[in-house]
Amino acid sequence: MAELQGFMYPRTPTGAAGILPGPPWHYSGEMLTIEFRTDPANVAELLPEPLQLAETDPGAVALIWADWQSCSDSFEELLDPARAQYKEVFLVVRCQYQDKTYSRAAYIWVDKDFAMARGVVQGYPKKLSEIWMTRAVSFGKAGPRLEPGGRFGATVSTWGRRIADAVFTITGTAETPGFVNAHPMLHSRQMPAIEMDGRDSLDELVTMRGFDVELGPVYAGDAELEIHDNPTEELDRLKPFEIIGGYYRQVGNSMAGGTTVWAAGNPMAK
Amino acid sequence: MAELQGFMYPRTPTGAAGILPGPPWHYSGEMLTIEFRTDPANVAELLPEPLQLAETDPGAVALIWADWQSCSDSFEELLDPARAQYKEVFLVVRCQYQDKTYSRAAYIWVDKDFAMARGVVQGYPKKLSEIWMTRAVSFGKAGPRLEPGGRFGATVSTWGRRIADAVFTITGTAETPGFVNAHPMLHSRQMPAIEMDGRDSLDELVTMRGFDVELGPVYAGDAELEIHDNPTEELDRLKPFEIIGGYYRQVGNSMAGGTTVWAAGNPMAK
Amino acid sequence: MAELQGFMYPRTPTGAAGILPGPPWHYSGEMLTIEFRTDPANVAELLPEPLQLAETDPGAVALIWADWQSCSDSFEELLDPARAQYKEVFLVVRCQYQDKTYSRAAYIWVDKDFAMARGVVQGYPKKLSEIWMTRAVSFGKAGPRLEPGGRFGATVSTWGRRIADAVFTITGTAETPGFVNAHPMLHSRQMPAIEMDGRDSLDELVTMRGFDVELGPVYAGDAELEIHDNPTEELDRLKPFEIIGGYYRQVGNSMAGGTTVWAAGNPMAK
Amino acid sequence: MAELQGFMYPRTPTGAAGILPGPPWHYSGEMLTIEFRTDPANVAELLPEPLQLAETDPGAVALIWADWQSCSDSFEELLDPARAQYKEVFLVVRCQYQDKTYSRAAYIWVDKDFAMARGVVQGYPKKLSEIWMTRAVSFGKAGPRLEPGGRFGATVSTWGRRIADAVFTITGTAETPGFVNAHPMLHSRQMPAIEMDGRDSLDELVTMRGFDVELGPVYAGDAELEIHDNPTEELDRLKPFEIIGGYYRQVGNSMAGGTTVWAAGNPMAK
Repeated sequence: MAELQGFMYPRTPTGAAGILPGPPWHYSGEMLTIEFRTDPANVAELLPEPLQLAETDPGAVALIWADWQSCSDSFEELLDPARAQYKEVFLVVRCQYQDKTYSRAAYIWVDKDFAMARGVVQGYPKKLSEIWMTRAVSFGKAGPRLEPGGRFGATVSTWGRRIADAVFTITGTAETPGFVNAHPMLHSRQMPAIEMDGRDSLDELVTMRGFDVELGPVYAGDAELEIHDNPTEELDRLKPFEIIGGYYRQVGNSMAGGTTVWAAGNPMAK
Repeated sequence: MAELQGFMYPRTPTGAAGILPGPPWHYSGEMLTIEFRTDPANVAELLPEPLQLAETDPGAVALIWADWQSCSDSFEELLDPARAQYKEVFLVVRCQYQDKTYSRAAYIWVDKDFAMARGVVQGYPKKLSEIWMTRAVSFGKAGPRLEPGGRFGATVSTWGRRIADAVFTITGTAETPGFVNAHPMLHSRQMPAIEMDGRDSLDELVTMRGFDVELGPVYAGDAELEIHDNPTEELDRLKPFEIIGGYYRQVGNSMAGGTTVWAAGNPMAK
Repeated sequence: MAELQGFMYPRTPTGAAGILPGPPWHYSGEMLTIEFRTDPANVAELLPEPLQLAETDPGAVALIWADWQSCSDSFEELLDPARAQYKEVFLVVRCQYQDKTYSRAAYIWVDKDFAMARGVVQGYPKKLSEIWMTRAVSFGKAGPRLEPGGRFGATVSTWGRRIADAVFTITGTAETPGFVNAHPMLHSRQMPAIEMDGRDSLDELVTMRGFDVELGPVYAGDAELEIHDNPTEELDRLKPFEIIGGYYRQVGNSMAGGTTVWAAGNPMAK
Repeated sequence: MAELQGFMYPRTPTGAAGILPGPPWHYSGEMLTIEFRTDPANVAELLPEPLQLAETDPGAVALIWADWQSCSDSFEELLDPARAQYKEVFLVVRCQYQDKTYSRAAYIWVDKDFAMARGVVQGYPKKLSEIWMTRAVSFGKAGPRLEPGGRFGATVSTWGRRIADAVFTITGTAETPGFVNAHPMLHSRQMPAIEMDGRDSLDELVTMRGFDVELGPVYAGDAELEIHDNPTEELDRLKPFEIIGGYYRQVGNSMAGGTTVWAAGNPMAK
């Protein structure tokens, strides 16, 4: 009957009601990265076959807070900012696949539905959460300056329970915001068959990378990170043995299509 | 490396962090159904090929509010009710597929992430929303009784804009809560390929039906429904020509696996 | 210039924009009461002079969850239920004042602004919170029945941190839902002078009691209560030594004016 | 019995649980001011006796969006930013009182409870709301730059209904962000007597002004403003006849005690 419009769901007569506008997507925001070492065995247990633990520094991971504006190529979301602003926290591990090193978001939380839906497409396993991150300011006493001594707090909670709290204090600048989140992303996209018999209708490994990247200076410093026991999360299996460092950076980039690295056939195809 | 646990995403060492517990899922709640007729052409434009408009009363649709508790077979969510309670609004149309009549949720909104994720599995195109529905009470003046004269309000909003408001007044009882939502559900499950080139990695038609159904009496009555113009929704293409009726019922049921009615192969399989 | 309308603020041309409609207010809802004993010294420290600790069982307190609908005499809020439904948790202590025993809400949390504003008028020191409480159901598996074995969970959180969790299991019925919340309320209403020099422009003790009370049966049972350490709350100073009991009841009542028991003059009057 | 601690309510053993830390309060944020002219009669109807309409340009008002961080002198809220960040929208009118011109927030909405409570102290008639305002960015495409052509959106909603939407486009700079919000604030602080018989226990006019003000450059430009009909608000009585201008500025300041300009005695004093 109808020629339905829209990138994701619902596909509709005009496309206006879709949960997520089509790509490309543009992002501007602030990222606060806390790199730390935990038990490599607890990183390994996050990697499905055939992914392998990174060969160097295999217990190094990163918990990253981000405060974003994002929009489609229409840019209209920026003028209705409820649809552009969201906050995000993600736990990045590294892995090896076919002799290449990838970054991988093992856990990720956001606070808007369009961001959740974009995660489903990109293979980010996004859940909803309450996320807060101090903003740098240029005037007045109620915020840090982007200079040594500037202090930031960052928190994430689900179901009214804190998952993690961090404090970051700028001590200087750095060349890069760490090394854990520095590789192309390798994500799983899986969908249980509606029969719910253990089979997946969709089972893929995908990779993607941003473009049109614009980067601010990297502010580096000291970080404290507390990961709380939480019955509906498993981040507490990754408690920090040792903080590697903290990094704050303003960034801009764009994302569009990625690459299917591997895909199974749909066993339900008929 | 690891044997990951969990029905949906993220698949994790213990499964505790998954966005959605595995099936079966149990539901108890109240449903308020407003059936109305709109232009059949505006129902037809919601149906992707090869779905066809229902042969009888093709302009009849239903907007349904529901106030749910749901849980897994562990029942633990009921003791942490943030994870059990959610509200839902959905627009149901009927369609024909291979000579059979199905109900289909063309639009649906919920207010929790686990319900959104369950929608992705079941093919319900769920977005987040603010949803409110009057509750019946047995004591005091601040609520309707389940008897003639009892009045209920129901609203749904996204991004701080109302989508629809309804008022329902009980006049008596009925055998059934209407006919639009009386068929097995036929839903699309689609996922754009990560290449974002117009292909879908997943493209299926699925059907499912509840079991262990327990039903309260159907309260029937008069309904008013206002669907507001809204730039991020398309429900306003379905403004009511004529109200068929309103129905309120307390229900319980369970859901588990359904049936893949049709599935394309994954064009990205390699 | 203008004759402004409205009970509380803002007072406006028509009164429609007031945060709180004028009295009377009608309430219907469910109350879950957990009575327990804690150190009487930690009750005493909650009572400003000249209030005295209750003479009998001075360490007995109650933490009460309530799931409300409320409305004004226009009843219009019930048809726009975002403005009628709210959830509440409060810690009730008893005190003596001029040889009379009163109940007093030392801490209270709600999840809507109109309820917060009503608290300011009534002397309930309401803060915003996330509150959840299992609902009894009549059909299906996703909720307790109002009969022995029915189990309810109840939680309250602020700033993404749990304050308290409770589980209640019905074992039978009782005559009354405990004794702690059985007296007229005695609350303080205080407002710092805008000079913020330690003086209060308003300083009163007020009492009030509901009317048109309609009560359902009292379901009594076993209760578990965990009060969590929380840096922005002091409920953790009242950890339970001993659970007295749990009680669930559906109630309805109305509230209007109370009585000023004592009031200081406004020292800023000029 | 006890010496209770805390500036506002609840007053408690340690003061940690108070809804609002004591003054001074420090603020850093961004303000977007839309100045416009409406019917002076509709400004006059907002002014209680004995306030008078401003003599010059009496129909000029301002609708102001602000995205704040605020904290107490402990600065601890900045490291738990859920307790520091909030957004605000307020409608400012001017008035004359005893031959002096004041600014006055006739309507104001915020999105956190501590900000609501601070409004009660300062005489700002704050209600809760959903508020969004585009943020300027320095990198990437998903946000305006602070330069000509930079476009900002701003919205405010209550109960899932939009109250107002604005779009602001920078065209250049200006000396000041308009003239409506340029005077000391004159606010009413009123509290109905618990008898709810029409008397107020507290009735004051108060004034206050910030200090330690740090100001960024004023970006001026074109503004569009749409005020929507809304059954629970009266801002729609102030629809714009003519836009005066739009202004964006980053600001910092601090607030502490103000001055009681006039106060009635408490008629309930006993």
